[in-house]
Amino acid sequence: MAIKLQDLADSLGVELRGDGEARVRRVETLERADGECLCFFGDRRYRAALSATRAGAVILADNDERLCPVAALVSANPYLTYAWAARMLHPVPAVTGGRHPSAVVAESANVDPSAWIGATAVVEGDAEIRPRAFVGPGSIVGSGCRIGEDSRLVARVTLCQGTRIGKRALIHPGAVIGREGFGFAKDGERWVRIPQLGGVWLGDDVEVGANTTIDRGAIEDTLIADGAKLDNLIQIGHNCSIGENTAMAACSGVSGSTKIGSNCTIGGAVGMAGHLSIGDGVHFTGMAMVTRSFTEPGVYSSGIPAMPSVEWRRSAARFRHLDELARRLRDLEEKLKQTNTEPRQEPE
Amino acid sequence: MAIKLQDLADSLGVELRGDGEARVRRVETLERADGECLCFFGDRRYRAALSATRAGAVILADNDERLCPVAALVSANPYLTYAWAARMLHPVPAVTGGRHPSAVVAESANVDPSAWIGATAVVEGDAEIRPRAFVGPGSIVGSGCRIGEDSRLVARVTLCQGTRIGKRALIHPGAVIGREGFGFAKDGERWVRIPQLGGVWLGDDVEVGANTTIDRGAIEDTLIADGAKLDNLIQIGHNCSIGENTAMAACSGVSGSTKIGSNCTIGGAVGMAGHLSIGDGVHFTGMAMVTRSFTEPGVYSSGIPAMPSVEWRRSAARFRHLDELARRLRDLEEKLKQTNTEPRQEPE
Amino acid sequence: MAIKLQDLADSLGVELRGDGEARVRRVETLERADGECLCFFGDRRYRAALSATRAGAVILADNDERLCPVAALVSANPYLTYAWAARMLHPVPAVTGGRHPSAVVAESANVDPSAWIGATAVVEGDAEIRPRAFVGPGSIVGSGCRIGEDSRLVARVTLCQGTRIGKRALIHPGAVIGREGFGFAKDGERWVRIPQLGGVWLGDDVEVGANTTIDRGAIEDTLIADGAKLDNLIQIGHNCSIGENTAMAACSGVSGSTKIGSNCTIGGAVGMAGHLSIGDGVHFTGMAMVTRSFTEPGVYSSGIPAMPSVEWRRSAARFRHLDELARRLRDLEEKLKQTNTEPRQEPE
Repeated sequence: MAIKLQDLADSLGVELRGDGEARVRRVETLERADGECLCFFGDRRYRAALSATRAGAVILADNDERLCPVAALVSANPYLTYAWAARMLHPVPAVTGGRHPSAVVAESANVDPSAWIGATAVVEGDAEIRPRAFVGPGSIVGSGCRIGEDSRLVARVTLCQGTRIGKRALIHPGAVIGREGFGFAKDGERWVRIPQLGGVWLGDDVEVGANTTIDRGAIEDTLIADGAKLDNLIQIGHNCSIGENTAMAACSGVSGSTKIGSNCTIGGAVGMAGHLSIGDGVHFTGMAMVTRSFTEPGVYSSGIPAMPSVEWRRSAARFRHLDELARRLRDLEEKLKQTNTEPRQEPE
Repeated sequence: MAIKLQDLADSLGVELRGDGEARVRRVETLERADGECLCFFGDRRYRAALSATRAGAVILADNDERLCPVAALVSANPYLTYAWAARMLHPVPAVTGGRHPSAVVAESANVDPSAWIGATAVVEGDAEIRPRAFVGPGSIVGSGCRIGEDSRLVARVTLCQGTRIGKRALIHPGAVIGREGFGFAKDGERWVRIPQLGGVWLGDDVEVGANTTIDRGAIEDTLIADGAKLDNLIQIGHNCSIGENTAMAACSGVSGSTKIGSNCTIGGAVGMAGHLSIGDGVHFTGMAMVTRSFTEPGVYSSGIPAMPSVEWRRSAARFRHLDELARRLRDLEEKLKQTNTEPRQEPE
Repeated sequence: MAIKLQDLADSLGVELRGDGEARVRRVETLERADGECLCFFGDRRYRAALSATRAGAVILADNDERLCPVAALVSANPYLTYAWAARMLHPVPAVTGGRHPSAVVAESANVDPSAWIGATAVVEGDAEIRPRAFVGPGSIVGSGCRIGEDSRLVARVTLCQGTRIGKRALIHPGAVIGREGFGFAKDGERWVRIPQLGGVWLGDDVEVGANTTIDRGAIEDTLIADGAKLDNLIQIGHNCSIGENTAMAACSGVSGSTKIGSNCTIGGAVGMAGHLSIGDGVHFTGMAMVTRSFTEPGVYSSGIPAMPSVEWRRSAARFRHLDELARRLRDLEEKLKQTNTEPRQEPE
């Protein structure tokens, strides 16, 4: 899609410095761009690439414009402007209503004619697929599920029975939503499964990554609020709730019944114990081990950064004696205090 | 399904205090319950909810009964009683024998007429599907696999060639069982794959979570014993064995050839090195890093709990010097000992 | 497949000590082997099994031959010899060209007649499937993907649009390659998705484990170089590159834009931050937390090994005060220095 720079600037609400009649067709890196390309500049370390670029135009901040040899779109928030520009130049194709002949759709399913059901997809009884929703190839939509307007199941997504998804959600391949949670009672040494009778409820604009799993609640629903973004290979246990616009990076896991507030960021491979309360605006860095509730906004971390193994082995061995070390230090402090304060026995 | 309270009490082998003719139909939370609901009370923190409940009946321990304003089912193990009661009120629907027209079943497969093969499922040659087994939509049952009586592949499960599953197993969507394990020999810098010729053998009452992966053995089988329960996104390497009734929480990984005993619990995101022996009754808390064998029953842990990043950064930097710190402490102790004990050189 | 020992020795380029006319048909463990079996011996701890074996022949190192009661194939690299021998005895079946009637193949897809498209697999428009490639059951090959000669998608693999795979690659069930990466700009508290326009490029002889996810690049491609081996449940973020013959064990995650060199080994459950540079020949042990670039070859580690919880709890509590501990130690050292060095005020 070719767009005139002036039209682009107007749509994005930013200032154009350059020829408004020139057109761009796609986004590219500064290095590889030609005159039909739009670029983004946000990191001064790439200054050399900017000054050598042959792009049609570059989105950047006001005080970087003097470094730019080509047309510039000057924005107070260049990255956000870039996001919107890239979406204009590379729009998601509109959904064509209908169903692939190989799709299996139950008679009692209620599929809007403007929605698409892809090849080999399965839609079970009483499911509701709303306008312009996209059910990609190989997906399974369990009985009684509801998929909101403009939501996309990219491919091979599994929605277990009764899962409800809002509008404009994006669910990536391999995601499993609504699995019966991991709930058992003990009968001697044996485990007895407890029926998991709640569901999963995803709000509008939620994103769920590839091979991520979200378990259904034991009685009440597991909740993923509007605008929450989950990356790949994440586990959300039963009865959890994830607040609005909270983003979780890949490989993290949240144990059952933990509630996370709004506008949090959870780094990669973070692990959270169950039954915790995490407040709004809490941020965990990657691989943090979250064993208690955090209600105050802030940044929290744990873990030991990698180091040469020889050093690590020595320090890790000492870790186990840290308590003893601390006690010995206190003893020393005590002794030294006595040594210094006790009157010297001077020769008479 | 409506059940009279007296019938329920009799079936569960617990004492009813209240009207035995009243009926309950479903389980609910104390807060949301109405007269047709059965509830569970097990945590005194929810005392207020109990005293305000409008449930038909509540399962609880003897000494909590006085707090209960409605009928009570008094149990020595309320949680287990609840599990069985919920299963009675919400039974898994019986399997209807047959196959969906879109299923692909090899002629040489041996499918019991009472088993169900779901939409778009694929059953390859010589597979054996025993009575009342359920092969959910999109599942793939490789050649020569065997699925025991009453086992359920919920949806989109992959069983690679020759995988054998016992009775009453429950396999959740996206699980991959019997993948060729990660075995290579080095040829200079290149890796040469070693054929993985063993299989995977799952016992009775085993559960495998969504997107969990279990690799086939190199020569012998990978074993998951009766009653073992695996949560979502777990990795079990080739040649591992997991003992009876051992339960593993989500995101854990067990490297190849590690043997885990019976009645263990493995917390979430635990990592285990390969070729270890873990005894019966060993418990690891979440995110533990298991680098050696543990043969004694007990609870084992590791990891650093999350803290404010500012504090963490300082402590993490010191960790690297822990060995040096310990040495300096010892030196100090030595010095102080000398200072205190060496005879003072007094002026003559 | 039965092979004469002399033919086997000749093909493998190793020395046979024993009857060259005897035949072996399969590999087995030393304990279970009979006269038709070939075994491997590489660890002296299993000496007793070697001396009791009834195998047809054993692959071993020269200085272990005297322990062997049966024919021996003597190799300078027994494990590699074993790998090749096992591949000869247990070859991957040749691919039969064609497609299962239930496969859905777009007309514009270019499928070589010698390639196989399995049951319920979906091949979208303009995809190119080259000679002898195997697309297993339930796999989805997005539009414009290319699969090289002799590559195998075992089953239920998802290749998103435009993914390109080299020759002899092996992709295990549940893998998702080419998902749109996790890229967002912030608009106030809301996240705005940034289109992910790059692709994923896998070289020759690459292996991707079950349920592993590899995200497409934002603009440029995510790259997995020739001979790289990825285990199960791994996450590779957008714009990453993984060097030749680098092997990653299960459950590891690499954040976006990190570049890993050649001939590295990454242990299980390792986590890597984004935008790092990892040099050639770098090795991380399991569960390492990689927060900075490592350009020097070597072995790097982090983490705390599991210990009894009672001990762990005490040491973990002290960790938080490690900085304070170090300061107090320095104070003590200072004080003691003064105590020892300051001239004593002797009586006059």
